Amino acid sequence: MVADMEIVCIGNELLIGKVVNTNASWLGKYATSLGIAVKRITICADDVPEIAVVLREVLSRKPRFVVTTGGLGPTFDDKTLQGIGEALHRKLQVDPEAFRMVQEKYAEYAKMRNMDVGEVTAPRVKMATLPEKTKALLNPVGAAPGVRVDLDGTVLVALPGVPKEMEAIFEASVVPLLREAAGDVGFYEKSIYADNVMESVLAPLIDKVMQDNPFVYIKSHPKGREHKPHMELHFSTFAKSSEKPQERLERAAVQLAGLIEANGGKVFFDLLNR
Amino acid sequence: MVADMEIVCIGNELLIGKVVNTNASWLGKYATSLGIAVKRITICADDVPEIAVVLREVLSRKPRFVVTTGGLGPTFDDKTLQGIGEALHRKLQVDPEAFRMVQEKYAEYAKMRNMDVGEVTAPRVKMATLPEKTKALLNPVGAAPGVRVDLDGTVLVALPGVPKEMEAIFEASVVPLLREAAGDVGFYEKSIYADNVMESVLAPLIDKVMQDNPFVYIKSHPKGREHKPHMELHFSTFAKSSEKPQERLERAAVQLAGLIEANGGKVFFDLLNR
Repeated sequence: MVADMEIVCIGNELLIGKVVNTNASWLGKYATSLGIAVKRITICADDVPEIAVVLREVLSRKPRFVVTTGGLGPTFDDKTLQGIGEALHRKLQVDPEAFRMVQEKYAEYAKMRNMDVGEVTAPRVKMATLPEKTKALLNPVGAAPGVRVDLDGTVLVALPGVPKEMEAIFEASVVPLLREAAGDVGFYEKSIYADNVMESVLAPLIDKVMQDNPFVYIKSHPKGREHKPHMELHFSTFAKSSEKPQERLERAAVQLAGLIEANGGKVFFDLLNR
Repeated sequence: MVADMEIVCIGNELLIGKVVNTNASWLGKYATSLGIAVKRITICADDVPEIAVVLREVLSRKPRFVVTTGGLGPTFDDKTLQGIGEALHRKLQVDPEAFRMVQEKYAEYAKMRNMDVGEVTAPRVKMATLPEKTKALLNPVGAAPGVRVDLDGTVLVALPGVPKEMEAIFEASVVPLLREAAGDVGFYEKSIYADNVMESVLAPLIDKVMQDNPFVYIKSHPKGREHKPHMELHFSTFAKSSEKPQERLERAAVQLAGLIEANGGKVFFDLLNR
């Protein structure tokens, strides 16, 4: 049984297309590479009731992990922690550990700029105000700590939206959990490339190979234009290493390559030799 | 009242982070620029029951528009139309108009390659097999037509996942609907940039300006590193042109710039002069 994850990205800038959601693809790729199946990604606005509704829906599906990005900073539009509090009916309170982390970070910045650490302002306190019964996660790069909430069957982790901060906390505090949950299961993938064959010709060939290789998922990605088609064929599987996943993929790829060439297409096993 | 939209992107490649979801940001930016408020973006797998569940959830929120991307092609993993059929309890059947579109496209390809148009294969028929009571939308670039479904209060449009095809159908068949629904309402935005001010210092200044300018939404985007902060401050509003939105944004930007400079920051009204 493959452990699953949902990703929730919070930020109006994602809805208005001001920012391309590279956080979701980075997290999806990383979690998948560790053998975790990402089931859904949801993007919603900086709005407390909306965040709470989305999180309740996500949690009702009982994924093993939920990772949120965005909304942890000091400004008024950073609403993720209030959203989590509302979703879980938990009060927000200043978390001593988070407060210590924020103050240390500001002391560090002040030192770099030869300034006094300054007063404990409301925005600094805001970053350390977490829903009850959660755990602050050290942010090695920025000021706002991440937050971990252990629920019945689900671990919810809230990460900042700034990519470098999100990535640093994920690597330090989330990757070990994912590795443990994945256990022996890994994600394996392989691509081959085909010229001179239209997707509509490929379709029944892929069907045939998937029937013969039930654990391999094949997806065709058209790359050229339809009248001069160039296809990437992507083979993937979640499997234990004892199940020889590489061989599984290889077998399926060789079979499909043979069928494509029998239908007049030209196959490349890597792009360098194309 | 601003007309709203949800976007649903269907494709395992988005969940595993193989592909960055530029379709969602392109659609979000375009729809927003026309005065439509994008409320949520959902990414789900190539799986009929999952697509159906997602669509039922989206439709239950009664957005004015739903746009889906991906899953319209000829291969087995193109499952969006089956998902729509299951969500709406509508049978799939060959749509004569869609069939004509697909055949014309293949005739065109065949002509380009000096070949016969070939037989009517199952994958070609698949692309023309739509849920009942839907309308095929001409694909000016590729073979798979888009699909429009008019529901009670919601227009659902299914577009292909290949960006060029998605964009071409959107521009030809969806943009006119969005313009009509937006009416007089437009989206207006403006950015200014600040050096030498931390987000935690900015927070109460933004709060103050938002209180004084209730129709303007302000979001801070940290661009530098925390110890050498550089901020983009983004002002936006949905408004009728008679409400003088540009002046609204300008007034808020000038007020915030003054507050930032009073707090030791340096403000740039455009990046070229920085």
